[in-house]
Formats: sequence, C-alpha cells, structure tokens
Amino acid sequence: MLAERLNNLGTETAFAVSLAAAEWGAKGNKIYPFHLGDINLPTPANVVEAMNKAIADGKTGYCAAAGIVALRTALADDVGNRRGLTYGPNNVAIEPGGKPVIGKFLQVVMNPGDGVLFPTPGYPIYESQVEYFGGVAQPYRYNQTATGFAIDFDHLRSQITPATRVLIYNNLQNPLGCESSLDEMKALAELAIERNLWVLSDEAYFEMRYSGTSHSIASLPGMRERTAILYTFSKKFAMTGWRLGAAIGPDELIAQIVKINTNDESCTTHFVQEAGIEALQGDQTGAKAILAELERRRDAAVAELQAIKGIVIAKPESTFYLFPNVTDAMDALGFTDVTAFADAALRATGVSFCTRRHFGRPLPGETEQYVRFAYSGISVEDIQEGLGKLRDWVEAA
Amino acid sequence: MLAERLNNLGTETAFAVSLAAAEWGAKGNKIYPFHLGDINLPTPANVVEAMNKAIADGKTGYCAAAGIVALRTALADDVGNRRGLTYGPNNVAIEPGGKPVIGKFLQVVMNPGDGVLFPTPGYPIYESQVEYFGGVAQPYRYNQTATGFAIDFDHLRSQITPATRVLIYNNLQNPLGCESSLDEMKALAELAIERNLWVLSDEAYFEMRYSGTSHSIASLPGMRERTAILYTFSKKFAMTGWRLGAAIGPDELIAQIVKINTNDESCTTHFVQEAGIEALQGDQTGAKAILAELERRRDAAVAELQAIKGIVIAKPESTFYLFPNVTDAMDALGFTDVTAFADAALRATGVSFCTRRHFGRPLPGETEQYVRFAYSGISVEDIQEGLGKLRDWVEAA
Repeated sequence: MLAERLNNLGTETAFAVSLAAAEWGAKGNKIYPFHLGDINLPTPANVVEAMNKAIADGKTGYCAAAGIVALRTALADDVGNRRGLTYGPNNVAIEPGGKPVIGKFLQVVMNPGDGVLFPTPGYPIYESQVEYFGGVAQPYRYNQTATGFAIDFDHLRSQITPATRVLIYNNLQNPLGCESSLDEMKALAELAIERNLWVLSDEAYFEMRYSGTSHSIASLPGMRERTAILYTFSKKFAMTGWRLGAAIGPDELIAQIVKINTNDESCTTHFVQEAGIEALQGDQTGAKAILAELERRRDAAVAELQAIKGIVIAKPESTFYLFPNVTDAMDALGFTDVTAFADAALRATGVSFCTRRHFGRPLPGETEQYVRFAYSGISVEDIQEGLGKLRDWVEAA
Repeated sequence: MLAERLNNLGTETAFAVSLAAAEWGAKGNKIYPFHLGDINLPTPANVVEAMNKAIADGKTGYCAAAGIVALRTALADDVGNRRGLTYGPNNVAIEPGGKPVIGKFLQVVMNPGDGVLFPTPGYPIYESQVEYFGGVAQPYRYNQTATGFAIDFDHLRSQITPATRVLIYNNLQNPLGCESSLDEMKALAELAIERNLWVLSDEAYFEMRYSGTSHSIASLPGMRERTAILYTFSKKFAMTGWRLGAAIGPDELIAQIVKINTNDESCTTHFVQEAGIEALQGDQTGAKAILAELERRRDAAVAELQAIKGIVIAKPESTFYLFPNVTDAMDALGFTDVTAFADAALRATGVSFCTRRHFGRPLPGETEQYVRFAYSGISVEDIQEGLGKLRDWVEAA
C-alpha cells in the first residue's frame, strides 16, 4: 500500500507525445519535433569553461543549502537591475532548476484548503503541486485576442473564494507565448493586494524575447513583499539539463525555501553554480546567439503556420512557443478531438506537437481547439519542411 | 503568514558548528575541522573527463525524470551484484544526491499518522522529514558495546505501536560509525516482515569500509520487495557537491518517486549522470585512493583519541565517523553540558566537532556524553596535531 497523497500528484502528460514521436521515428519516419520545450543548441563555451575551472579549484564538495554567496549576489543584482528592484543575497535561494521553485513556494505559503489561482492553459506542474500539497485548484482562463491571448478577468474573479490565498502568474506564457499588457499586469497586482495574496511570478521566459522589454509584476507598487520570482538559467543560456534556477523574493520566504533545500537536495550542484556566475557576468555572445537563432525559428514557424488555411496564429514577441487555433483545420479534416488530430498529423507528416490538453484540464465552455508548437528543438530548415508537409496535409482536405 | 507545515520542518543543526568554527578561524585561530561530513579530496579525474565528454556530446538538455537508462542499468547491476540481488533499470530512480531519497521515500509510503522507526543518534533529516510529512517519530536507541554500538531491541520494540508502518535503518551508521552483526540485521528484518513495514535502508556508506564486507538488509529473505536502498556517489567517489544518488527498490515504489522527480527537480543534471557511469564502470584507481587515504585518517584519529584519558572509542571498520564517549573527560574538566564542552574545546584547541545533540533529540535516560568526529575533511597531519592539542587540554584538567 502506497501513500494516499500520491492520488493527488499529477504529472507532465507531454511525455506521451515524446514517446509516440520516438516510436513513429523508430519505424523509419522523419520526425519534426515541435513537442519539446528543450533547446537543441549548445551551452555557451565560456560557461562550460567556468565550470571546469571551478572543478579544478576543488569546488566539488557541498556548499550552503541557499547556494554560494557569489551566485546569490550575482543573481540579486542581475534580476533586480532588469526589474528596477533591489535584492540582496538573502532574497535568493539557488535551486536545481526553475521547476522546484513551484512546489517549494507552495509548501511555504499554502495551507491545505487554501485556494490557488493559476493559468489555464498553463504549465501543468502548477495544478499538480497545488493539489499534491492540499490546495484548491482555481484555474483562470485566457481568451484569444487579435494579437495573442489575454486573461479573462471575469472568469478569474469568478474563481476567487474566501479561501483564495495564492496567485500563480506566468507572464511570457507557456504554452500561449503571450504577454500581459501593463494594464493587465496592474489589474492582477491590484487584485493580489486587495485579496492579500502571495504571488508566484514564473519569469522563466523574462529574457526570451525578440523585441520590446519585459516587465515583472514584482516591480509594481506593493508587490515586491508578496511576490516570489521563479528564475531559470535553462532558456537564456541553453542550460536545461544543467538544472540551475532560483527563487527570488522576500527574505523570510526565501529562508523557508532554503530550509526545504536542506531537507531535500542539500544544495544545487556546486560547480554548476560557479558556471552560473559566468553565465550572468561573463561574455554574452553565446546567449545572444541562442536568442538570434530562436528568432529565426520563430519567424519561420509563424510564417509557415500563418500560410496554412484553417490555422490562426498571431506572432508572439517572446518565449519559444506558438499556440495556434486549429479549429477550422480540424473541421476541414473532420476531427472533433484534438488528440486524434495530433496523432493523425504525426502519422501523416511526422510533425509532432502537444495540444491544449497537455496544459491543464479544459474548462467548461471551451469550444475552440488549440495545439502547441515549440520551436526550440528544431532547425529552421526542418521547421519549413515539416510545416510545409503539415500544410499539404491540412489543405488536401 | 507562512504555511503551518513549516512548524514541523527540522534541519541540520550542525551548520551552527561550521559557523562557530569559521568565526573562530576568522580571528586568526587554526581550526581542526572534524565537524564536516564532507570530503576534502578531489573527484577522480576520469569522472571529470567523462562529464566533459558528455557536455561536448551535447548532453546538456533535459533527460528523463527517472534518469538516463545507461546509468540506471549500471547502478542496477553494481548495487545488485554487491548485494546478491537482481535489479533492472525500472528499480532505479536517479536523484540529485542520496538525501532526497529520504523525503521522497516517505512521501511514497507514509500516510499522516503512520509511525516511523528511525535511529537515534542518527541523521537528523530522518526525523525532520517524518514529522514534516505528518508521520509519528519513533526513534530507536543504540547502546554502546565493547566494539562499537548495537541497536537496543527492547527500546525499539517499546517504540512500536499499531500505527508503525516504516523502518528507517542506517547500517554503517552516521554518526556512530557502527555496523550491525548479521544477527542484528536478521532480527530487524524479521520485525519488518512480522509488522509488514516498508524499509528505507540508508546505505550511503556501504562501500566506505576498511576491512570485511558490507551486507544489505534488502538481501535477506522477504526483504527485497519492501526495501528501498538509498545510494549515493558522494562518498566513494568524493562527489558530495556533484549531487548524484539514487533510490533502488521495488518498481512500483520507484515509479512513484520518479513522478515526484517530474514535479520537483525535473531530472538530475544530465552530464553528471554520464559521469556517474564512468565512476561505476571506469578505472577505480581514484576510488581506491580515496578509501586508502580515509583509512590512514581513521587509524590516526582512533589512535590519538584512544590516547586521551577520559575518552573511550572503539575502532570502526566503516564510515568516516567516530563517536567517542567523552563522559569522563567532561567530568574531569567540570562540564555537564556537551555543547559547552564542544564550544570550550574549539576555543581552547581549535578542534571543531559535532555532539550527540546534532543527531536527534536525546532520549530520556541518556546519561553518557558523546561527540562526533568526522575525519573526511582533515589531513593526517592535522588530525595528529589537533587531537594532540585536545589531549593536552583534556589531560591538563
């Protein structure tokens, strides 16, 4: 008999898409992998070199559960400067990736029975960790707009109960690829203050943008003291497999996350933290090249998708995700189920992608169909070839 | 307001000893660091090289939450062969260190209100994680013997209640440095079977021994299916700061730990896992040299401590810890509080060590006084110099 709490633990169901793609590929079919949120580009060489120097310098032993002070200071400066905020090392807990921040934040601020607002479609680990630690899921909807997606505030307000204590917010959003207007962000902040909510601001894609400037909800008046920022090295520096991220927020909250670190992973890999300092403060040529390559892919993928009859997609200025409306294409091909559509697309064209279903339970009243293309793990050439095949398949209907 | 569960979260209080030592050292005093469970020896070069080859090969992206199959297979073989058991990759969940296995195992097998037997003195994270996840702490005592320490079975049985569901067992024990006789291990196994307990066998020090052969409780009849082994690369390969370990056990239990991984750290650092394969299967010169150096330190530390009047210590054949009885030395110096004794020793001699208090709450009826010396982070020369000073200080009384 295993523990009952496991009944409330969710997962990332997108793994099944990877498996289906791998199986189809193993039969000799060319796969166009748009399902991966991973990056098929190398980590900048100077970051690897810094790691090796750290190993040669003997940084192979334990370090503090909060992380090494030099990285905490570097992150406090970098994250603060980009947001117009002042942080110090006591505001930073180094984590083995950005993801652990979700569960640790919830453990620190959420009691069983507390309501937690989180985006849907959204990163599925929010809901999983809310329910695992005994919270009440209060998903809020995004609506499609002419330029992307926007929070449905009427729906969000309808989800709030007297038990609501926490807001999870993912501006520069996975899977939507969208971004809040400043008005939308301000309205969220006002609501958080009015309701006295803790806020997790998942800023994993804060610097993954092709024009404009990112803003953090933590920068708005009254928000710094109630907001934890989820930071990750994974995207900007192509370090997904390195597992390096951080929670940045009020020191009393960070101190408790550090105490959880002491009980869980002890510390994040010591020499990987040293490499993180170089990533933040060393030569930025590599990070710029990663972003430039992702922009070429974004341009190629958006152009190809916009050319397909029955698929509607606005051009996002951030993240590496596209969340097109495929309702008309599905209608034309006679699909009513988005999973069946994705399966058929894989078998007909080799194009592999996730659907809305991988990003939370659909809400009542959702009539439009959406899928998610990630362009972080596929070359421009393959984007064009794969989406060309998808176009032929859809338009042959 | 932070979450109420944090009131039940413990920590490793030994950090305060590190801090006191660092402060005393910063005033210009030479410190003899016996408080650290860390290793001041380099990781074998072939392991570092394997990691760099993995990075050059592009192993910088995400991998499966369970770990890479090659490492899971290598560990299944290595751990199984050394214990006379057959494991496959589905019996292995790779973790960022051995420590995360404690909390994840408890989350998988323990419901709130379940009783958990764990050793005292023992690794403090057992009690912390039992109470954090709502279990009932049922610490069992070890008694000093002529050759080390042995489980007090009368006391252990007195701790058992109808709610007891889990046994945590740390043979080759931290902080005691002791090892079960085969009879003691068999008696524990019989009790686990009779009471239908899940067992966490913390085998972090299984290969850290200077003579004889280690045995695993998982090898005893009826035990494999109820036991999870905590494995770590930290000690044998001097990889504490790399954060690489594993849970090894029944596949249905491992599958749930993997699901927790998906929600927590996502995966353990990808290229560190590749290095783990080399550690297990590559040239073993480095691991042998680490063990040989630790043996020299053990011999030096035991000889020095045995020479001090009022300190009683048997020579352990495993771990890198010594847990001497210092009752008479404290009496001679006029100390009744072991913390005050340790503080005074630091200030008088620079010798820094933990005490029994850092390894769980003392039980009623404990009259003898113990401290813990770790010899993994200090050279033979400094062991002799430091413990010589300690002897002068104690014997001047």
